[in-house]
Amino acid sequence: MQIRKTIKASILGASGYSGAEIIKFLLRHPGVAIDTVCAAGSAGATLESIYPSLRGKLSLKLEKYSLDKVAGSDVVFLALPSGEAMNVVPEMRKEGIKVIDLSGDFRLHDRSEYDKYYNHEHNAWPLVEEATYGLTEVRYEDIAGSHFITNPGCYATSIIIPLVPLLREGLISEKDIVVNSLSGVSGAGRKTTLDLSFAEVDNSVKAYKVTSHQHIPEIVQELMFQTSKNVSLVFTPHLLPVSRGIYTTTVATLSEGITAKNIADAFISYYGDKPFVRHLGNEIPEMKYVLYSNYIDIGWKIDEDNGKIVILSTIDNLVKGAAGQAVQNMNFMFGFDEREGLL
Amino acid sequence: MQIRKTIKASILGASGYSGAEIIKFLLRHPGVAIDTVCAAGSAGATLESIYPSLRGKLSLKLEKYSLDKVAGSDVVFLALPSGEAMNVVPEMRKEGIKVIDLSGDFRLHDRSEYDKYYNHEHNAWPLVEEATYGLTEVRYEDIAGSHFITNPGCYATSIIIPLVPLLREGLISEKDIVVNSLSGVSGAGRKTTLDLSFAEVDNSVKAYKVTSHQHIPEIVQELMFQTSKNVSLVFTPHLLPVSRGIYTTTVATLSEGITAKNIADAFISYYGDKPFVRHLGNEIPEMKYVLYSNYIDIGWKIDEDNGKIVILSTIDNLVKGAAGQAVQNMNFMFGFDEREGLL
Amino acid sequence: MQIRKTIKASILGASGYSGAEIIKFLLRHPGVAIDTVCAAGSAGATLESIYPSLRGKLSLKLEKYSLDKVAGSDVVFLALPSGEAMNVVPEMRKEGIKVIDLSGDFRLHDRSEYDKYYNHEHNAWPLVEEATYGLTEVRYEDIAGSHFITNPGCYATSIIIPLVPLLREGLISEKDIVVNSLSGVSGAGRKTTLDLSFAEVDNSVKAYKVTSHQHIPEIVQELMFQTSKNVSLVFTPHLLPVSRGIYTTTVATLSEGITAKNIADAFISYYGDKPFVRHLGNEIPEMKYVLYSNYIDIGWKIDEDNGKIVILSTIDNLVKGAAGQAVQNMNFMFGFDEREGLL
Amino acid sequence: MQIRKTIKASILGASGYSGAEIIKFLLRHPGVAIDTVCAAGSAGATLESIYPSLRGKLSLKLEKYSLDKVAGSDVVFLALPSGEAMNVVPEMRKEGIKVIDLSGDFRLHDRSEYDKYYNHEHNAWPLVEEATYGLTEVRYEDIAGSHFITNPGCYATSIIIPLVPLLREGLISEKDIVVNSLSGVSGAGRKTTLDLSFAEVDNSVKAYKVTSHQHIPEIVQELMFQTSKNVSLVFTPHLLPVSRGIYTTTVATLSEGITAKNIADAFISYYGDKPFVRHLGNEIPEMKYVLYSNYIDIGWKIDEDNGKIVILSTIDNLVKGAAGQAVQNMNFMFGFDEREGLL
Repeated sequence: MQIRKTIKASILGASGYSGAEIIKFLLRHPGVAIDTVCAAGSAGATLESIYPSLRGKLSLKLEKYSLDKVAGSDVVFLALPSGEAMNVVPEMRKEGIKVIDLSGDFRLHDRSEYDKYYNHEHNAWPLVEEATYGLTEVRYEDIAGSHFITNPGCYATSIIIPLVPLLREGLISEKDIVVNSLSGVSGAGRKTTLDLSFAEVDNSVKAYKVTSHQHIPEIVQELMFQTSKNVSLVFTPHLLPVSRGIYTTTVATLSEGITAKNIADAFISYYGDKPFVRHLGNEIPEMKYVLYSNYIDIGWKIDEDNGKIVILSTIDNLVKGAAGQAVQNMNFMFGFDEREGLL
Repeated sequence: MQIRKTIKASILGASGYSGAEIIKFLLRHPGVAIDTVCAAGSAGATLESIYPSLRGKLSLKLEKYSLDKVAGSDVVFLALPSGEAMNVVPEMRKEGIKVIDLSGDFRLHDRSEYDKYYNHEHNAWPLVEEATYGLTEVRYEDIAGSHFITNPGCYATSIIIPLVPLLREGLISEKDIVVNSLSGVSGAGRKTTLDLSFAEVDNSVKAYKVTSHQHIPEIVQELMFQTSKNVSLVFTPHLLPVSRGIYTTTVATLSEGITAKNIADAFISYYGDKPFVRHLGNEIPEMKYVLYSNYIDIGWKIDEDNGKIVILSTIDNLVKGAAGQAVQNMNFMFGFDEREGLL
Repeated sequence: MQIRKTIKASILGASGYSGAEIIKFLLRHPGVAIDTVCAAGSAGATLESIYPSLRGKLSLKLEKYSLDKVAGSDVVFLALPSGEAMNVVPEMRKEGIKVIDLSGDFRLHDRSEYDKYYNHEHNAWPLVEEATYGLTEVRYEDIAGSHFITNPGCYATSIIIPLVPLLREGLISEKDIVVNSLSGVSGAGRKTTLDLSFAEVDNSVKAYKVTSHQHIPEIVQELMFQTSKNVSLVFTPHLLPVSRGIYTTTVATLSEGITAKNIADAFISYYGDKPFVRHLGNEIPEMKYVLYSNYIDIGWKIDEDNGKIVILSTIDNLVKGAAGQAVQNMNFMFGFDEREGLL
Repeated sequence: MQIRKTIKASILGASGYSGAEIIKFLLRHPGVAIDTVCAAGSAGATLESIYPSLRGKLSLKLEKYSLDKVAGSDVVFLALPSGEAMNVVPEMRKEGIKVIDLSGDFRLHDRSEYDKYYNHEHNAWPLVEEATYGLTEVRYEDIAGSHFITNPGCYATSIIIPLVPLLREGLISEKDIVVNSLSGVSGAGRKTTLDLSFAEVDNSVKAYKVTSHQHIPEIVQELMFQTSKNVSLVFTPHLLPVSRGIYTTTVATLSEGITAKNIADAFISYYGDKPFVRHLGNEIPEMKYVLYSNYIDIGWKIDEDNGKIVILSTIDNLVKGAAGQAVQNMNFMFGFDEREGLL
């Protein structure tokens, strides 16, 4: 409390699950004051009327966005559905406001991929080149100098972080990577569709968007950027009857002669000093241990008989997969300790 | 009710989840009378005191097993933990009683595999050769003539059924098959370990027995038997916070030139007339639609970019994965319609 | 299968949860053929496309309702939202079709109560007098001779059945009855509101419609009809993070000198021969044991220190609380064994 | 981090759910250093091996308790099963160490009640008189001066806080109070009994210890102490398929002429300045909004027809119902702001 609030942050989409999480973390952050909170559909309501868990902690009125309302902010978080961020980023950037966008609007560099995977016309394409991909642990240096972050997808975060060291060091093949992810329902946002209703989701599991999820090009793009390899992977997301969390199981082909020690060394070398990556070695991660936290837990086993490695990684989709990583990126952008607000 | 009860069945391990399901199905079966129900730990208690959902439907006292108590039965179901069936099968078979064993005791033909995956000394190994692997849809002819069924594992059932047509017809490669399965907690049996307690399982997911699950050799053995191919697959089971159900996602490499039509044709050709296999084509199965039923639902998508196929299959682990398939096998053994008691 | 289908039944609202359950039970019923299935919003679709668990069991196309489509039916089940049944009952009754209405449209006899608790103008009020309240165990004689059943509310069923014997025999006071009920989410129907979405319901509990639930006047009306006493009760429903089931805890004041034996005798005398009422005495019911069944389980404890009795009762809201009781009522109306189709 | 750690705290029973929560809160507390953590069954293991969510945050080895290991602590938290605290409190108090005991060992003042409700012989009865009942909001002045706190039961906390203002101000009758509480499974502790296993708890609800729960005498004792009235209440606890949280519904008879304004005024007057009591008025609380927090949310409705009030209150059983309130009490004992470590 004795630390001066040095920067001001605003949030668009504050009534959604990710928006609410950002606010929760910023409230704990000693260096950030919350400026304006916007939510198109709930403008006029108080934030605590939508998230009663905030009652007694803060009292903020949700507003309808206009540029002037955030013009005094040092940074704006966009927790909007894909297709909406592109309408506001240009004017914010023109104004010199730093932006952290949690949507998929500015993640893809190949426009044909964007057109294929996002069912929306893009009206601010040139800004894609300005955006820094905010996968903190592999991009923190760029992030520190960036004014515009495109925050990674939740699945992408859980998949890319463990693969970068193994691919870059040549420990696994870039071919035949098979990824299965299991996600809690909040990943779909605060929505009211029948297939997300309790009685439909409870006691069930289903795969969805098989071979067609919009995070596939994002994952491949970043892995190719990080490793200069022509990565091919099959990704199958599944919906689970839990509210939060992602659990990812990746199977890859080990390169010739690679041992468990090589794998462990790579993880330790890349992430040993990263506060939010917990390398468990041969211990199997469990989703519950990362919930409500910004950690990614990574474990793995070698399948000697088949020459494969099975990698298990887990995050909270709303934290490391969205709001937490966004705040972590903000910390780099403004020179705070990356853990500030997140422990 | 006007059909004469023509055979008598006994159940060992009647207090476990699978045992109780067998009883539930037999109660609905017009041709089977329940003879003796045994449960070592609960002998003396009534079955309905352990499964109060049965109150008002039947009144049976659980007994401590001895051969004479089941000597008048036409068939005995063994719903015992692995390692216990081998103690009673020899004397039952000597007596000429037909046996359907749900444990893993007689599934593997390679003793070194048994020793590696089951942590138990085998004391009735010669009987392995007498046992028919009870995966109904691919073995029904053998089953009809068999006196001793070793009922498949729940994971194995969900994995082998979709793979047999594709491998046998050469539509996919036998190499690099990657299987992820998600299972409800009842798969572990009616147990009291800390890691199966509600507060530990709820809101979480974990992989377990990574690269070391005892169904791996069973799956590979049966696929090799069915297809004469040197199958290699990586299998990762996961524990979900649901009570029942298995959801399996299999990724395999398509053979050259194979189209969606080839895949569909193979499934229809093998299973089009099988009442408990529902081929959904490109529609994605959901676990809830098979719960409490003996169906296996199978759907699939081709990933053109990677030359892969993603196959989704789902069963109720206690029904098609255990008790239901056991009763289906009994139906073949005794000349009933295979659906009897199961709809 | 050898029994002749003697009557034909149609269902309106077949795409809802209760409608689908009715169909499930009728499929198992040896004396009933399903005639027409209607669903306004899904007309043209097949029933199994909406409830894939039915795939392979039946193939029916959902139709848009018109009188001529059900004119050949012996009985029509109305599984419509409250306010819609009143639009079709008059023409069906004029045609001489027997009707079982699961909505609240014809339950209340006091129009001012209807106006207060149902936010809808009634356009067929005179038919209220023709309707028989279908609480099977206390009304079966009337039901057998009725052509028009108004099926009870799910909460009402769980509350009235245990109270009738105790109030009628004067074992408890009609004053100060306190009822708390816990319900699964399917009780709200197949809906898409935010507050029924998985991420909102999971890991939470809330009371709702406190002092204002529409089952209150229904419960009081029937208890007064059954007991001629001026009953006063406070009812608080709660929403639980489960799909199905109702658990009701009722606390009432014991009359002077009443013993546990008096209570047990009353329950046995009223319900000892009723196949779907299971009287557990001092054993505590658990919700799981009645799920997917038409049973109501009732247990109770006397609180000597306070002169009170605590009564626990539990049903499946979609079965005994809706579809199952509707089929049970049909069985009485058409002279079938009341258990037919329900075991 | 710049605040000096001014006091040292130890925890016994650190491997249980409440113990782990205490550690989580103390880690966030600027004025407290964790000294020794003990756990009989897990001595030698690290705390993070049992609670992997703590990995990367602290590294502590669990020890077997002996007095000398905690002799340097300013305060010791006892998160032990009932019946064990009494073995260590005497020697700690003799040593002058402040103690906060979360068990039921020292809550009851009437030994016959203790003997009736706790199935254990008491071997330190005289210390009962030294213990201050740690229901913070109604006892904070005594707590500030106390050296030995007996922390309230979780149910008791959720029930007593809303009743104190209403009873003390004579707004409700002390007779005929009916309390129903719903609890998550963690309330039973970190145990391995069959009835707490996932497959048994999931999709179910049950009442338990009907008329015989050990919190009944605790609640009555404290209400009588606070209000000098001869309180009579019937309490029925229920087990829910959720991990955490308590939801309590209390029905009481309004005194003559009492209005909604009287009720609201009483709550505001007693708790308007209490940071962890949120008075929602006529809004209905939901359990999810208090989870992982130290808040108690209270709402209520008047039932005019029956002259009753329905009060809804909800807490996290492990926080306000255990660890959070314990830390809040510590804050009063050592002169910290009561919110320290808890926001």
